[in-house]
Amino acid sequence: MIKLIDSPLDENGIEGFAQRLRTGRTSVQETTDTYLARIEALNPKLEAFVHVATKQARVAARGLDELLAAGTDLGPLMGVPIAVKDIFTVNGMPTCVGSELDVSDCIGPEGDFVRSLKRAGCVILGKTRTTEFAAGAHNIVNRSPWNPSDLVTKRSPGGSSSGSAVAVSAGLCALAVGSDTGGSVRVPAALCGIFGLKTSTGSWSLDGIFPLSPSLDSVGLLTASAEDAVTAYCALEGVEIPRSRALAGLRFGIVSTDSYAMDRDVHQSYVSILEEVESQGAELIPLNWPTAAEQGVISKIFNNLVAADLMATLGEKRYFSERARIDPTARSRIDGAIRLQAVEYLRLSRCRRELVKAASRQLNGVDALLSPTTPLLPRPVSEIADLEEASKFTAQALSFSRVANAYDLCAASLPLRRQPNALPVGLQVACFHKEDKKLLQIALCLAAAIRDSRIGE
Amino acid sequence: MIKLIDSPLDENGIEGFAQRLRTGRTSVQETTDTYLARIEALNPKLEAFVHVATKQARVAARGLDELLAAGTDLGPLMGVPIAVKDIFTVNGMPTCVGSELDVSDCIGPEGDFVRSLKRAGCVILGKTRTTEFAAGAHNIVNRSPWNPSDLVTKRSPGGSSSGSAVAVSAGLCALAVGSDTGGSVRVPAALCGIFGLKTSTGSWSLDGIFPLSPSLDSVGLLTASAEDAVTAYCALEGVEIPRSRALAGLRFGIVSTDSYAMDRDVHQSYVSILEEVESQGAELIPLNWPTAAEQGVISKIFNNLVAADLMATLGEKRYFSERARIDPTARSRIDGAIRLQAVEYLRLSRCRRELVKAASRQLNGVDALLSPTTPLLPRPVSEIADLEEASKFTAQALSFSRVANAYDLCAASLPLRRQPNALPVGLQVACFHKEDKKLLQIALCLAAAIRDSRIGE
Repeated sequence: MIKLIDSPLDENGIEGFAQRLRTGRTSVQETTDTYLARIEALNPKLEAFVHVATKQARVAARGLDELLAAGTDLGPLMGVPIAVKDIFTVNGMPTCVGSELDVSDCIGPEGDFVRSLKRAGCVILGKTRTTEFAAGAHNIVNRSPWNPSDLVTKRSPGGSSSGSAVAVSAGLCALAVGSDTGGSVRVPAALCGIFGLKTSTGSWSLDGIFPLSPSLDSVGLLTASAEDAVTAYCALEGVEIPRSRALAGLRFGIVSTDSYAMDRDVHQSYVSILEEVESQGAELIPLNWPTAAEQGVISKIFNNLVAADLMATLGEKRYFSERARIDPTARSRIDGAIRLQAVEYLRLSRCRRELVKAASRQLNGVDALLSPTTPLLPRPVSEIADLEEASKFTAQALSFSRVANAYDLCAASLPLRRQPNALPVGLQVACFHKEDKKLLQIALCLAAAIRDSRIGE
Repeated sequence: MIKLIDSPLDENGIEGFAQRLRTGRTSVQETTDTYLARIEALNPKLEAFVHVATKQARVAARGLDELLAAGTDLGPLMGVPIAVKDIFTVNGMPTCVGSELDVSDCIGPEGDFVRSLKRAGCVILGKTRTTEFAAGAHNIVNRSPWNPSDLVTKRSPGGSSSGSAVAVSAGLCALAVGSDTGGSVRVPAALCGIFGLKTSTGSWSLDGIFPLSPSLDSVGLLTASAEDAVTAYCALEGVEIPRSRALAGLRFGIVSTDSYAMDRDVHQSYVSILEEVESQGAELIPLNWPTAAEQGVISKIFNNLVAADLMATLGEKRYFSERARIDPTARSRIDGAIRLQAVEYLRLSRCRRELVKAASRQLNGVDALLSPTTPLLPRPVSEIADLEEASKFTAQALSFSRVANAYDLCAASLPLRRQPNALPVGLQVACFHKEDKKLLQIALCLAAAIRDSRIGE
């Protein structure tokens, strides 16, 4: 293996870096250079980045060091090197949305969210790989770097924010930006052993982002820990979140997992953390939710409504003339729009609105929902390479995460196992729409419980 | 002819009534009874009301008189007897949406707008006839009561808020509530010689209203004059609108009418009022707008997108099993949804959003737009009774009004001619989205100009 400089945020995450930066123990330029060196060494194997903005990042880093020296402190994200999923417009960088097709006409100019990261002082290292059009969790290009010593068995990191998850997991950036329509932040976070936050729809602007399905799309963050996500969220939103760790008194709704075949390790880790959570005084309330009928509606929303939205974005003319150049798994998903009637689309939109309304009724009296993030362990890519396996993998991988999108919740995935030889498993926690702050506070408590439980060690 | 008590608002409209009420010259009960007597006498011929809430109205009237006697003044609409289009839920009254089908499941409970009318002290006399599902301007049941001496030739009042227009025009209520998706308030107002206001989408809540096309639907008022509409609007919104009458300095964009065959009387009245407006110092700016391409898109929006929205509301199962019981013109419109693909629907939604965005660019620098409300004079119902003529009539009748809906403007129709032997003609004035106040202020100026011009006398 290549001799690498350690990841600059290993010691106490973003907060630790912020302290070291302000006490002169490191500089933005030094940190940026370390990340760029790590990218140069590891990216050829991991393919997390599709564009590395070396020069732009160095210029920004120098400017930030000078600003700080001159007494201007932009706050907790100042000088933090980040990566952005390649469906967001960033001035001066290409946006390819994981496609050979030119879809630049579908994306607006740099939007508010990227601008807010820049204004907070982040250094953008480059753009990370996405599955084509951000559709689907199937990615056999990247690999989950959960354990650098097991680079022999190449395992899928999931998707669609694959590159962002891989980059954070392998220490190629301090935090990464993703987007989440059915699990595209949480599932790769779970399969790469890191933390993923899917904010509420409407919390962060979708301007300048390739639209997959506008009513379901949301912005997300991928970080090494819940603590880093909280630091970033608070810096961007100008809020404070108490770093409490008391689970006692919280009421968790336990999502029904009966109808899903779960990998045994996922099931075991999940049961262990539920026991830990209960032993710390939280109340677990098993839910018969979503029902089988609701699951059927949710499948149709993701198979047909999302497909029609995507087809409408691409335009039928472009789609049918360029179909051969599109990834077969993306293609098979988009084909779900063919022959879909307008009235059926509207019926599904209505069903979705009904689900959203029903959520607050059905989930009355619980603080948050718990489920595995995905029922699957990271799969060797050799097992999911053909179209049938790939489609099956996508549907299974997203089966828990897309529930949160369908009901318009905010949600996060916490890494459950930290032992080097155990494959990563994620715990999903979800709160009501716009309860992002509460979600993150609970995530901090759960992260502490995971540490206490020593699951998988 | 039956001997009738004069319409209680003939003298100085709603404001005059309010003064007489507060100086003891009339009571809410007396006024309500007068309207109920007029309804009893004229409604069998005009069929404006489909439900008369005699008892409910009298109880409300007595309560309002008592409240006023006790010193509680609910404001300018206190004691004003009104009529509500039969697509709004009003507690204690049936809602039939002009249909033999039971569509009560498509409509929510009484909404904010009806509640605000009640809280303002209005007396609801009953529900007025709508074309089925509020779709289309074709109505051969009612008659335009523009001239009570010409009840020989039964002429269509247009639609869909037909009964509301007829009720106001014939003095069966002081003001009436309608809804407008493509001209359903303004076209019947024009064809019945009264004032019609289509508010901006989102200005007044659509809760408790049968949805025709949620992104295009808006609430409207039908009144005898612009002054009455201003009084009602200001009372409901808690705002003031200056009663200025100066047109000098205003810039009016003149909508292109080249591609429309206009009835000669409509054209003449329209040209005359434009001359008057110009002579009073306003600037007229001829627009090449909407272009033929935009007109094509607008047609598709109303023929296909609206049809799909309506079909989705009704549900295909109900529609196809009950199709024979639906009015043939409504049926032929809804059929526009059959075989419409989801992607084409989404393309049309996108086109609509583009039109809305383009409006502010294209109409930069004008205060308001002017056009005829409809290119047609009220047609004898015998001429538009068969399906082909009915469809042609609807498309032609709405050709100017629906432009305002497509571009998401607010708009009003002013009665242009007041001579008893001249058929009514309407002048449409439109302002940008949410400029309802400005629209009404300009409408007051135009109403004064119409009086000055003595058009049609």
